[in-house]
Amino acid sequence: MKVLIVGGVAAGPKTASRIMRMRPDAKITIIEKGSFLSYAGCGLPYYVSGEVKQQRNLMETPAGAVRDAAFFLSVKNVTVRNGTEALEIDRQNKRVRSRVLETGEAFWASYDKLVVATGATPFIPNIPGVNSKNVFTLHGVHDAEGIKSILAEHLAKDVVIIGGGLIGVEATEAMATHGCRITIVEMLPQILNMLDWEIARLVEKHLESKGVRVLTATKALALENRDGKNDAVSHVRTDKGDLPADMVILAVGVRPNTALAKKAGLAIGATTGAIQVDDHMRTCDPDIYAVGDCVECKDRLTGLSCFVPLGSTANKQGRVAAVNICGGNDSFPGVLGSTVCKVFDFCVARTGLTESAAKALEYEVITATVPGPDKAHYMPAARPLLMKIVADKKTGKLLGVQATGPGEGAKRIDVAATAITAGMTLDDVANLDLSYAPPYAPAMDNLITAANVARNKRDGYMVGISAESVNRKMQAGEDFIFLDVRSPQEHAQVRLPNSTLIPLGALRKALSELPKDKEIITFCAISLRGYEASLILRSAGFSNVKVLDGGVAMWPYEREM
Amino acid sequence: MKVLIVGGVAAGPKTASRIMRMRPDAKITIIEKGSFLSYAGCGLPYYVSGEVKQQRNLMETPAGAVRDAAFFLSVKNVTVRNGTEALEIDRQNKRVRSRVLETGEAFWASYDKLVVATGATPFIPNIPGVNSKNVFTLHGVHDAEGIKSILAEHLAKDVVIIGGGLIGVEATEAMATHGCRITIVEMLPQILNMLDWEIARLVEKHLESKGVRVLTATKALALENRDGKNDAVSHVRTDKGDLPADMVILAVGVRPNTALAKKAGLAIGATTGAIQVDDHMRTCDPDIYAVGDCVECKDRLTGLSCFVPLGSTANKQGRVAAVNICGGNDSFPGVLGSTVCKVFDFCVARTGLTESAAKALEYEVITATVPGPDKAHYMPAARPLLMKIVADKKTGKLLGVQATGPGEGAKRIDVAATAITAGMTLDDVANLDLSYAPPYAPAMDNLITAANVARNKRDGYMVGISAESVNRKMQAGEDFIFLDVRSPQEHAQVRLPNSTLIPLGALRKALSELPKDKEIITFCAISLRGYEASLILRSAGFSNVKVLDGGVAMWPYEREM
Repeated sequence: MKVLIVGGVAAGPKTASRIMRMRPDAKITIIEKGSFLSYAGCGLPYYVSGEVKQQRNLMETPAGAVRDAAFFLSVKNVTVRNGTEALEIDRQNKRVRSRVLETGEAFWASYDKLVVATGATPFIPNIPGVNSKNVFTLHGVHDAEGIKSILAEHLAKDVVIIGGGLIGVEATEAMATHGCRITIVEMLPQILNMLDWEIARLVEKHLESKGVRVLTATKALALENRDGKNDAVSHVRTDKGDLPADMVILAVGVRPNTALAKKAGLAIGATTGAIQVDDHMRTCDPDIYAVGDCVECKDRLTGLSCFVPLGSTANKQGRVAAVNICGGNDSFPGVLGSTVCKVFDFCVARTGLTESAAKALEYEVITATVPGPDKAHYMPAARPLLMKIVADKKTGKLLGVQATGPGEGAKRIDVAATAITAGMTLDDVANLDLSYAPPYAPAMDNLITAANVARNKRDGYMVGISAESVNRKMQAGEDFIFLDVRSPQEHAQVRLPNSTLIPLGALRKALSELPKDKEIITFCAISLRGYEASLILRSAGFSNVKVLDGGVAMWPYEREM
Repeated sequence: MKVLIVGGVAAGPKTASRIMRMRPDAKITIIEKGSFLSYAGCGLPYYVSGEVKQQRNLMETPAGAVRDAAFFLSVKNVTVRNGTEALEIDRQNKRVRSRVLETGEAFWASYDKLVVATGATPFIPNIPGVNSKNVFTLHGVHDAEGIKSILAEHLAKDVVIIGGGLIGVEATEAMATHGCRITIVEMLPQILNMLDWEIARLVEKHLESKGVRVLTATKALALENRDGKNDAVSHVRTDKGDLPADMVILAVGVRPNTALAKKAGLAIGATTGAIQVDDHMRTCDPDIYAVGDCVECKDRLTGLSCFVPLGSTANKQGRVAAVNICGGNDSFPGVLGSTVCKVFDFCVARTGLTESAAKALEYEVITATVPGPDKAHYMPAARPLLMKIVADKKTGKLLGVQATGPGEGAKRIDVAATAITAGMTLDDVANLDLSYAPPYAPAMDNLITAANVARNKRDGYMVGISAESVNRKMQAGEDFIFLDVRSPQEHAQVRLPNSTLIPLGALRKALSELPKDKEIITFCAISLRGYEASLILRSAGFSNVKVLDGGVAMWPYEREM
């Protein structure tokens, strides 16, 4: 069996390795355009920051062997042709024409099975100056080296990062470790569009606390050279003003590399622009498979096509393709958009649908926004973790979860992804037997508490109101009591605007001071005491009582200090 | 509605709080024998170690309010009677007779619903000397204070901990932070009986590396006072010799407090000795509920009764009981025995069935033992994590997972617990969309890799052999080749006994040196290269090739340095 694999970064080599394990007699050739093979592209931001010391670390196996062509041949019996570009697929005759980039020599290679693993390429916005020498993407090893060489010469005081997505925020932290002054320019009203607005706002505030300027709803119009220095950008012109820039990072997303597939007439997804595959990772041609960042995925929850290029997905797809190529029967069931990224001290993670995505799909949702410590609260190692849970009101099924803060968010998101995959309801999640000991979790895990708060809302015990809605009421000059039930000490430290203090322990005795005809919105640090207060008020006959979702911890607007 | 709750530590107050949230008109009284209320018993080892600074930290809400009787009255409108013992339940007249311990005053309190939350008590082995003044359990606040006072006077150089279960190992670390020399005496052949032997052995080795002596299969026979000092133990006599002891901690498990329930004729589980409840947390008397450490649970996987007292379970049960008491309909579905504990630098966690438990239940199992870094291996923060996965050979369903090592085990165990709850198979687990970024996970999460290795075994690509079996072969003098395929550098650092070195990269060229008629057992650091080597050998016609489960990392016997 002759297998030809186009693409040697992640999904391609994974497919090759797995095939060789199942069919040691297979003849496998990998054709890779670049000079590097099987490297950890996701690790590039940490190579730029210096956390990963050497380029070769990204190419090594855990045992320290560099995964180069010699390694693939000796260990896996796989032939690799680096610096070679696949130009065209002749499906009729089952062969691929390629060209050696250095010599220009072209050749045909035949296959029994072909695997397209051509990856993705950063999107370059169509604005002036993007080709200047101090403008980079952060996609390949060469990008990282270019950025590092400028950083090494301390030539980048001001860095503008265009795009506040995953790569943008990861690049931000990498640059910040070198002492750069960083501005993120994001066209949308928020960074990290994978999150709901108020969760993204918390990440923005954290970035700001680290000295990063975050400009949302701002469009980069041109990268300009005003110093007259040789082909280097000095300013980024935006629709909100100009920004000095010694270096610019373009991080406005990636596009699947589909030229080869398109030319061969393979089906391309209409909404994603990526190569269509079935759950066996087979394209519309039964002898051609496609895997990794160039293919579209199915969302397991909605069944919709999506484009979520990730190294974790690429590896799973490579394995599935290999099994099927070797005559087995394996399926890749799709993704949930599970994502995590490190943003300075914050872990930011999500899975499934955000509230806004769920509403756009016309789900009627229950949400709960629950901050709390990620370990037993009396343990010094406990860190705040903010969770937002979204469930389907009709079925009670979990639709999505977001987590942010210094606490261990990825842990809870992985549990949530598993629960969503299984179609679990809020009730199911609330009774999961998650592991508990004070150094690892609170007795009621954060995800379980979030599910319980959502159940309280569903069952009418708690009427929540979002910070956004409260803010709108304030802007509109509505008359309501914004009731802070924290301690006087907490109130003295930081306050929400126009709030009235009655500590929870004093509330029962102060009921007569409160008017029964006014709307009351209660809150505390995390809205647990706020919830207790609302129950006391309701049992005393106050009928219009709501609880601020997530309390002071989740308030995305200005606070009084 | 009058609700009487017997027990004020964890499940009782939780039940009370939840009832008051649902039925603010309820009249709730908590009767608690001890002087403390609603405290975090699980935090006691960390109070002893000094990590938790003050006793009150264990009694505080996350907002810093002490949960005492005044707090329960003012915030929750719940009456608490501390220092009061419930003596008898008069089911006929729905009332409980109690006695105030200090005054001896007895009284009857009537109820509409009664909640028994009497907790558990440490088991005291029937050996001489257990009542001496330097012999403690680690169960209540008073125990912790007693231990701390001896530690504060630096009177405990040698500490013997009898029992190597959860409390025993947590106590070990707490004592070690005070510089004590510690010996654990465990009657069974291993500590932490919730783990398979070879996983527990790794924890024992870690304890030993921290200077702790671990004596398994050793029975404490007597606690002796040889110094003649006032009522203090000086030695622990065991069936393997005597141990000096300035302090002894008894940690041989807890027994449910069922005297009150038994006297009232409530049903008690035959195998567990704990109070029987239905999934509404109701005892055989429809007006009496029971929650927390005094009740037996259902194992979600096997349906068998079990006794797994944990704070996390107590909280969930309290909520369920409260909902049903208030006329709602909520069920507690049971547990999976999910457990985690910190043992110095190791996180030790498990869920579901161990291999030995599964075999005892006559499951035919597939297992995989997979060490690996818990984050992308090139990240400096990556830590080793050893995972063992147990699946049902017939259905492919996940039965249990164990994790140990410095890496983040609890994260993977929580995902596994969720997957087992959902009845997921190895195939399901292998394709979970878990969150991935280099600072948080490898591209293929440790649990996914473990599932894939188990799939390889199931599908015949990998024939594993346990370290135990290899060791038996060695002891029996069997003739086989123990093939180390690591690098010469790795081999020079640490070796397994009687092993032959052929680095993986050199194996294809060295095939002629190996005899085809002998059994070959391959290994590397974690048995990934060992697996590759076995495939190379098999494809070259070697028919009797096995891979050492878990490689050098999981070898529980002596190594050569």
